[in-house]
Amino acid sequence: MKIITFLSDFGYKSSYVAQMKAIVSRISDARIIDITHDISAQNIMEGAYVLYSSVDHFPDGTVHVAVVDPGVGTSRKGIVITTQKQVFIGPDNGLLIPAARKQGDFIVYSIDDSKYVNNKISNTFHGRDIFAPVAAHITNGVPFDRIGIRTNNYVNLDFGRCEITPKSAYGEVIFIDDFGNIITNIDGDLLLKVLKHDSKIMVFTEKNKEQMVFVKSYNYVKKGSFLATIGSSDLLEIDINQANAAKKLKIKIGDKIKILF
Amino acid sequence: MKIITFLSDFGYKSSYVAQMKAIVSRISDARIIDITHDISAQNIMEGAYVLYSSVDHFPDGTVHVAVVDPGVGTSRKGIVITTQKQVFIGPDNGLLIPAARKQGDFIVYSIDDSKYVNNKISNTFHGRDIFAPVAAHITNGVPFDRIGIRTNNYVNLDFGRCEITPKSAYGEVIFIDDFGNIITNIDGDLLLKVLKHDSKIMVFTEKNKEQMVFVKSYNYVKKGSFLATIGSSDLLEIDINQANAAKKLKIKIGDKIKILF
Amino acid sequence: MKIITFLSDFGYKSSYVAQMKAIVSRISDARIIDITHDISAQNIMEGAYVLYSSVDHFPDGTVHVAVVDPGVGTSRKGIVITTQKQVFIGPDNGLLIPAARKQGDFIVYSIDDSKYVNNKISNTFHGRDIFAPVAAHITNGVPFDRIGIRTNNYVNLDFGRCEITPKSAYGEVIFIDDFGNIITNIDGDLLLKVLKHDSKIMVFTEKNKEQMVFVKSYNYVKKGSFLATIGSSDLLEIDINQANAAKKLKIKIGDKIKILF
Repeated sequence: MKIITFLSDFGYKSSYVAQMKAIVSRISDARIIDITHDISAQNIMEGAYVLYSSVDHFPDGTVHVAVVDPGVGTSRKGIVITTQKQVFIGPDNGLLIPAARKQGDFIVYSIDDSKYVNNKISNTFHGRDIFAPVAAHITNGVPFDRIGIRTNNYVNLDFGRCEITPKSAYGEVIFIDDFGNIITNIDGDLLLKVLKHDSKIMVFTEKNKEQMVFVKSYNYVKKGSFLATIGSSDLLEIDINQANAAKKLKIKIGDKIKILF
Repeated sequence: MKIITFLSDFGYKSSYVAQMKAIVSRISDARIIDITHDISAQNIMEGAYVLYSSVDHFPDGTVHVAVVDPGVGTSRKGIVITTQKQVFIGPDNGLLIPAARKQGDFIVYSIDDSKYVNNKISNTFHGRDIFAPVAAHITNGVPFDRIGIRTNNYVNLDFGRCEITPKSAYGEVIFIDDFGNIITNIDGDLLLKVLKHDSKIMVFTEKNKEQMVFVKSYNYVKKGSFLATIGSSDLLEIDINQANAAKKLKIKIGDKIKILF
Repeated sequence: MKIITFLSDFGYKSSYVAQMKAIVSRISDARIIDITHDISAQNIMEGAYVLYSSVDHFPDGTVHVAVVDPGVGTSRKGIVITTQKQVFIGPDNGLLIPAARKQGDFIVYSIDDSKYVNNKISNTFHGRDIFAPVAAHITNGVPFDRIGIRTNNYVNLDFGRCEITPKSAYGEVIFIDDFGNIITNIDGDLLLKVLKHDSKIMVFTEKNKEQMVFVKSYNYVKKGSFLATIGSSDLLEIDINQANAAKKLKIKIGDKIKILF
């Protein structure tokens, strides 16, 4: 099955998302799956994490279109990235990089061939006029070197520094989900080498500190209590069982986190 | 046509929903239809009603995956329910029961066969790691007794007591939609046996009382006026024509409603 | 490929949207694409614009179902509109007209044949009981004159008056997207005949005035600065680069806009 996914900061009120799907449907019969369109406006880091968190669950060959694009209409390039598994299409602003890098070595193409984009290109909506038609043509088998030229010059992005010692972990907040769960960049597999489940830990945010237990899942603590756990993306999360930890701790993406075991 | 539906309290910002669809797409070419992912966090009753309100409109054979799952990662089971019409998959916490019961007799299976779930099971996301792959395999024809064992031991749930007399009706609020329409558990067909359209009624909520008319549809009263009507799920609703009744009455799910004719 | 789109003011919490898709899936294997379900409750003008802004991107033959329907359950008719390109189905309240008119001459049918609608018609949900099944049957090839009778009597709607002179432009706000971009009814192609990019302009709203530059895209001004640009629907927009212009100007749909060059 051919699949095209869409991720953006367009929200759900306008027809921008539907316009991209309309263009795809003119060209390709690929299945369309939304990742999200609720990325905070212009928040490239948040978009990069949500894309990163989902891509490995899709089949090989999936083509991802991601559009968080404050530089649209300027000289920033559009790019296609191919990994050994999947394809990523969007603006050259770092958005696609963490997801692509997760899949090993990758090749970046700078989109240049007007043959595979819309006849009229708006200055404000390259998701519809460039990225969507390119994605559709790729699912139809158009070779990458017909769509752009290889480049080693692209904007990089990572989720910041994370450090784990036998007594502590340092990192930062990279996402807050709709439950208010606080996802950090602290690697779960590495953490499990130095910290056992059911250990008490002290978590320091920029404005608060909270003692909690490092547990296997939310319900190992009482309803309303803080907890730390390895979430479904294998990263450390700070949560409250059945309540909103991010609101309680007044935390935002990018905030530093320090944990003492 | 094979159909898998999804309902959850995951919201639209994270990639959790897309991750479930990605897993399904690896296994099955069933059409995917979202019921909603905007159930209030951990609100099993609300999720149960929204599922209940939609399932009978789907074709026979539809497989529903519903995930409102505060107990994930504990000993609560995952279950598959088969009715004479459709299949329901999710946590054993009552969420699936009203929808299944609406379709007559049903059989409950406790999911146990690791062959039809993901290789790695997270402690926090059984929607992706257990329920989605089980749903996909079921649309491919895997028999239920290969996925789990029959059980009579499951968590029950109903929408509370409703009582209709020749002079009154008692019930409770089971859902509030995005218009602010207040859906009660008072059965429309039974109510129509004792109450005629265009009758004046007095509605008592826990904090307010309002006189209104029992009408066929919203527009039988002036814009901005309260009304009671049999909604599209054959249940009594308290609404305001073109305004938000739930906000005006400060009402919430679970509140008691008394109506005098 | 057969396509049915859905647009409504139902929101995302209830199962109303899924119920319409369920009915379609009983009858037709057409691809289903959501335009939006986040139209402000009962806001026909907003729904009309979002439909209008998307339809020309879809392939010929696409069938659009749009439901913003404060008059449901009264004597207002349901209609099917056919243009030379596409089909529009919904209430006779103006919602479908701007989109249909954009595609040239059109024919309006008043829905009357109970054969192609649900067996039981609720008083409050014609989207599910009439418009969805009619759309599905149309994608299966049922002729329009089996579904309704031609009529010249229908509710009209337009986006208001826009006037462009060599020194000024007058119009009104017809949409505000999730970024807070303010879309006006001022035609971009006509405006470009009298106003050059990079010109300074003065924008008067009902409560404010702001000097800004008319530019090719958001990023031609500094982050946080106002700008005017021709948006992706070829209409003049008033925006702030990477911030919410509608909130800053306290503007709403229907507000008048005056621009002096």
